[in-house]
Amino acid sequence: MQHRQISARGKALPYPAICAPLVARTSAQLVEECVAVAAKKPDLIEWRVDFFDAIGDAKQVIDTARQLRSAAGAIPILFTRRHEREGGEKIGMAESKVIELYRSVCESGFIDLVDYEMDNEPEHVQALRETSRRARLPLVMSFHDFRKTPAVDEIVQRFERAASLGGDVAKVAVMPQSLDDVLALLTATSRASSSLSIPLVSMAMGPLGAVTRANGFVFGSAMTFAIGASSSAPGQMPIDDVRAVVDALKRAS
Amino acid sequence: MQHRQISARGKALPYPAICAPLVARTSAQLVEECVAVAAKKPDLIEWRVDFFDAIGDAKQVIDTARQLRSAAGAIPILFTRRHEREGGEKIGMAESKVIELYRSVCESGFIDLVDYEMDNEPEHVQALRETSRRARLPLVMSFHDFRKTPAVDEIVQRFERAASLGGDVAKVAVMPQSLDDVLALLTATSRASSSLSIPLVSMAMGPLGAVTRANGFVFGSAMTFAIGASSSAPGQMPIDDVRAVVDALKRAS
Repeated sequence: MQHRQISARGKALPYPAICAPLVARTSAQLVEECVAVAAKKPDLIEWRVDFFDAIGDAKQVIDTARQLRSAAGAIPILFTRRHEREGGEKIGMAESKVIELYRSVCESGFIDLVDYEMDNEPEHVQALRETSRRARLPLVMSFHDFRKTPAVDEIVQRFERAASLGGDVAKVAVMPQSLDDVLALLTATSRASSSLSIPLVSMAMGPLGAVTRANGFVFGSAMTFAIGASSSAPGQMPIDDVRAVVDALKRAS
Repeated sequence: MQHRQISARGKALPYPAICAPLVARTSAQLVEECVAVAAKKPDLIEWRVDFFDAIGDAKQVIDTARQLRSAAGAIPILFTRRHEREGGEKIGMAESKVIELYRSVCESGFIDLVDYEMDNEPEHVQALRETSRRARLPLVMSFHDFRKTPAVDEIVQRFERAASLGGDVAKVAVMPQSLDDVLALLTATSRASSSLSIPLVSMAMGPLGAVTRANGFVFGSAMTFAIGASSSAPGQMPIDDVRAVVDALKRAS
């Protein structure tokens, strides 16, 4: 059983790291949300920029990142444009523009990690990988299936693919239709955790998968998304609840 | 996903029921332990009578049961002689005497459920089944493996055997050597829960299995053993910790 921690700002985050999403649509609301979320002391804050109305205006994005950096204090910020295809908001922006935006944000120094989906075009994945590496920011290489849960072997292959594409962290989120699916996600996480050398992040979404959000760390998931102010995906639990579960389990093992 | 509750004293217990063990060796210590445990408000209290120094003296056992009944208030009491072969204390008593003791205790009216291992001699299992049925007390038909975790199919067969032997509740406790074993226990619980019509109880013991004690209810385990005053098996968590996990998970699903 390997428990690899995620690193950000040159330091290892707690295992598991509790990450709270920001999903507000305007700069002012984002700052307000960030202040409220930071007060709950998550280990990480994710800015889901696909919710941001002005995502098409790089200057506004950078300016907002600057304000969030200040509002978040010492808490690292994960910058994520979730693709519509993988559960994100519709942004109507060419992917080449998205890559440019990631580049500007990486170079700004206001954010600490980035997330990008492995199923994007190979050229874009490679560009993103180079951009974040140049800025020395860890890259979370992610995959989301909002409809179903792939078989155990397929989930393991997703983690492996994230690693082979150069991800610093491999993330897989699936939608369970049954408890068997929930167990498949945990089984795949446990297996991939034994064979890969990068930190993994996994979750089964929705109410059925809530058990994986709070207990996934036992099986090798290094980060869990929890509600600070608002949820960004189905099944997320409040930060305090996740922390209560993690602390209770850690005391017992 | 069926969530069958355990019944005691004619009422359905909460799902999952949190059961705290008593392991003191003398009558006076047991009453003291019971008062302390009852204050933590478990849903059930288990008297592990194999720890009782005077187990060979039926009169003392009944008298102690009477005192525990009073100390436990409205909390149902589960009476359990755990066999040495399945993790219990050495009692040096012929099994026929044990059966006689169970009969006296069942007839006393001071206890509410009984636990007996399915791997005892068939004649003893049958005698116990008849005794508890005559007293209208639910029987937990149990199996414990303190060395390893059987394969998923074997665990499912254990649940099925408990049902076919007439158990009102089927209990399987295993010792995991790996996270695969922990997942095997949860998988078997989930499967048996879909096919059987009686409540199931399961746990993977030790620190590695702690996750099953707090979250087993998600996969169909209707009862979990937690520490009121003392633990009776490796990996048990304090009642408050188990309740915190259960409550957090229930809010999320």
